[in-house]
Amino acid sequence: MSLNEVYSVLLKKKKESLDLLFEFLKIPSIAAQNLGEKASTNFLERIFGEAGFNCSTFETNGFAVFTAELNTDSDKTITFYDHYDVQPVNNELWESPPFEPTIRDGKIFARGVADNKGEIICRLQAIKAYRDVFGKIPVNIKFILEGEEEIGSLNLGYFVENNKEFVLGTDLCIWEFGGKDTEGIQNIYLGVKGCLYLELKTDTIGIDVHSGRTQFVDNAAYELTWALAVLKDRNDKILVPGFYDNIPEPTEEELLIIDNFNLKEEEMKKTYGIDKIRLGLSGVELKRKFFLEPTINICGVWSGYQGLGSKTIVPHEAFAKVDCRLVPGQNAKDIVEKIRKFWDNNGFSHIEITEWDGYEAVKTLPTNPLAQAVIQTVLEVSGHDPIVWPLAGGSGPMYLFPGVPCISIGTSNSQSNAHAPNENIYIDDWIEGMKTIATLIHE
Amino acid sequence: MSLNEVYSVLLKKKKESLDLLFEFLKIPSIAAQNLGEKASTNFLERIFGEAGFNCSTFETNGFAVFTAELNTDSDKTITFYDHYDVQPVNNELWESPPFEPTIRDGKIFARGVADNKGEIICRLQAIKAYRDVFGKIPVNIKFILEGEEEIGSLNLGYFVENNKEFVLGTDLCIWEFGGKDTEGIQNIYLGVKGCLYLELKTDTIGIDVHSGRTQFVDNAAYELTWALAVLKDRNDKILVPGFYDNIPEPTEEELLIIDNFNLKEEEMKKTYGIDKIRLGLSGVELKRKFFLEPTINICGVWSGYQGLGSKTIVPHEAFAKVDCRLVPGQNAKDIVEKIRKFWDNNGFSHIEITEWDGYEAVKTLPTNPLAQAVIQTVLEVSGHDPIVWPLAGGSGPMYLFPGVPCISIGTSNSQSNAHAPNENIYIDDWIEGMKTIATLIHE
Repeated sequence: MSLNEVYSVLLKKKKESLDLLFEFLKIPSIAAQNLGEKASTNFLERIFGEAGFNCSTFETNGFAVFTAELNTDSDKTITFYDHYDVQPVNNELWESPPFEPTIRDGKIFARGVADNKGEIICRLQAIKAYRDVFGKIPVNIKFILEGEEEIGSLNLGYFVENNKEFVLGTDLCIWEFGGKDTEGIQNIYLGVKGCLYLELKTDTIGIDVHSGRTQFVDNAAYELTWALAVLKDRNDKILVPGFYDNIPEPTEEELLIIDNFNLKEEEMKKTYGIDKIRLGLSGVELKRKFFLEPTINICGVWSGYQGLGSKTIVPHEAFAKVDCRLVPGQNAKDIVEKIRKFWDNNGFSHIEITEWDGYEAVKTLPTNPLAQAVIQTVLEVSGHDPIVWPLAGGSGPMYLFPGVPCISIGTSNSQSNAHAPNENIYIDDWIEGMKTIATLIHE
Repeated sequence: MSLNEVYSVLLKKKKESLDLLFEFLKIPSIAAQNLGEKASTNFLERIFGEAGFNCSTFETNGFAVFTAELNTDSDKTITFYDHYDVQPVNNELWESPPFEPTIRDGKIFARGVADNKGEIICRLQAIKAYRDVFGKIPVNIKFILEGEEEIGSLNLGYFVENNKEFVLGTDLCIWEFGGKDTEGIQNIYLGVKGCLYLELKTDTIGIDVHSGRTQFVDNAAYELTWALAVLKDRNDKILVPGFYDNIPEPTEEELLIIDNFNLKEEEMKKTYGIDKIRLGLSGVELKRKFFLEPTINICGVWSGYQGLGSKTIVPHEAFAKVDCRLVPGQNAKDIVEKIRKFWDNNGFSHIEITEWDGYEAVKTLPTNPLAQAVIQTVLEVSGHDPIVWPLAGGSGPMYLFPGVPCISIGTSNSQSNAHAPNENIYIDDWIEGMKTIATLIHE
């Protein structure tokens, strides 16, 4: 009995794994369009049930959360967080139909194969193969598979509230995303940033006014412009009092990891079509800013006349969408209150925050033994030191698992087109992903 | 022979005048839709020809400029500036078809009746009636009737360049607009503000970027926000160096007129749906600001995601439309150069001014004897002291008539709906307008 035998089984059962994955990929499960909930949970119930898991479907106001548990009487538990919903598709832009999985050039093309159905089958097949060889899994296994990740995990909090023991009774949670970069090196994420999303509106006048009368009325577009301009200066220093409160100083170890992180500035510049990074930053300074500092960003803004030619008006209303990426220590509710207070104190009470939504940052320290175990496993299986991100640039609902080390590893690649047409993964990466999971369980 | 006899003729010929006006109003002459140029100039040629004018049609790249001249061997000349084009229509919003003039409740309803075909017929009929009674007009008369006022007088400058003697060889130009306010008092405008219209764009990144990477790229929306925010402070002080250069100090007399001007703040607040005037200003302070200070105004702004829900991106491009109302002494070209330089010096070279268009403010001092004559005439005919605006809030191409005193009087009312559905004038106001013109010629 050895891991090599498990690897052999994984290769031998490649066809079975592919069949299972293809069956899953054929279900159009799009929460945004209210499609495929029941078909997905039925499918999951069957395949996890056949693998001996205790399955359960937790109903919510939206798509159900499916859970599966394999109790092996161990004192350790690993939980896998994934989701069975996918992004909507625009059929015309796909080379092969998004819900008819197709293999070309060693890749599987289908909606959801990278994000995130591929991971679910990958993880299940690894566990099954390990048990085939060793007879028993050395840890307890749990799966939490939600159906609304692509629309903001609307009911995951409700699920967690009602299943605290199940969610928090675990030693490690393997999160949904991760994969290989352009050089084929596996990227591991030890956390996610928090996010605060704000929708803003101001309605300063009853009607649009002829701009010959601009002296008499508050221009909604200008008021919003000033309100956004005072939130941060052009060096990205956020001017909202207390915005940086409670952010802990980084440890020496954390700084070491950040300073040595390979950020690939040149690749980034090429991708984004820019000559230099914002503010001319590079190297350590840029990396510390990226990993350690919160941000305020305008996602969209609109007001007044946007058509051809000229229209000389004072617009009566203006809108914006703003997001803040938060770092550990910050709290979304607290931040939105601070922005409100700052505007109120500076004559911007009329800027309405019409909607807000937010969640906190979460990270696992690289010194955590379980983080080290995951890093070591990836090194062993892939033959390369992985790139370890202390925090991903993006955000996710990891904060719903407080106290649980959450780490993202995955089987996608830099050209996987998650959320985009022609989503794909390499079959070889997928099999390697299974080996990684099997090895992780073993160790 | 007396003016009263002229007034009688005007009343007697009311039907002839209405028939002429209705014929004119039935021509859909919409420069924006390339409609009715030839029909209009043919019509004008006929009616001015029949009245003994020397007519001429000056071709341009757009709609022709029609001129008519009545040389009476006087050493004085009055010129009437008007236009034969009208605003586009939305038929559905009209109670009667816009190009089928209709009389209801003492008003004529038709597109262009207020702006500006009514004035053309009014002025021509007044001159004809005067000559019927007195046999001769005591001044030379000129008409300059352009066909593109509603789309920005695109070729009027070209016409003026090629007809300098005709345009500038006049003592007084009666401009196109003016009329009665809500209380039935005639408003006279002694000038117009200048205008600078800017279209702005910035394109900071090659593509929209995930907002988890906002540290690396210049957010186009934020860059434009900051660029607009630095143009003026919230007290409306414009921060562009040199913006206020060359604006002459107001004379004592000018201040007296401004300070005594009846601005009707309460009516304005009601119309605009506001509780208080911007910055809490009122009275003299507000009036001096309105008449004497230039403005910067955002007409429209847009960037990034404007749809439902959240999309977390760094927008790669952003747009705005901005107008400045200029006062006498300022020059549009000079101002756009100063804005450019200010932005260049403050790290906003990337804000492109993709288009700009502008013209200068023009005013006639109220002490000018011809202005006094017009004011006196209106008082005599209407029986009320007119309200005299030193400058209109809006702008127009009066600057093309340098050195010529240009004064606006007209026959519309505060509910005339120029540019809007159900455009109308009162027949009585129109006849009174004819009397005013006849009286002005006489004196």
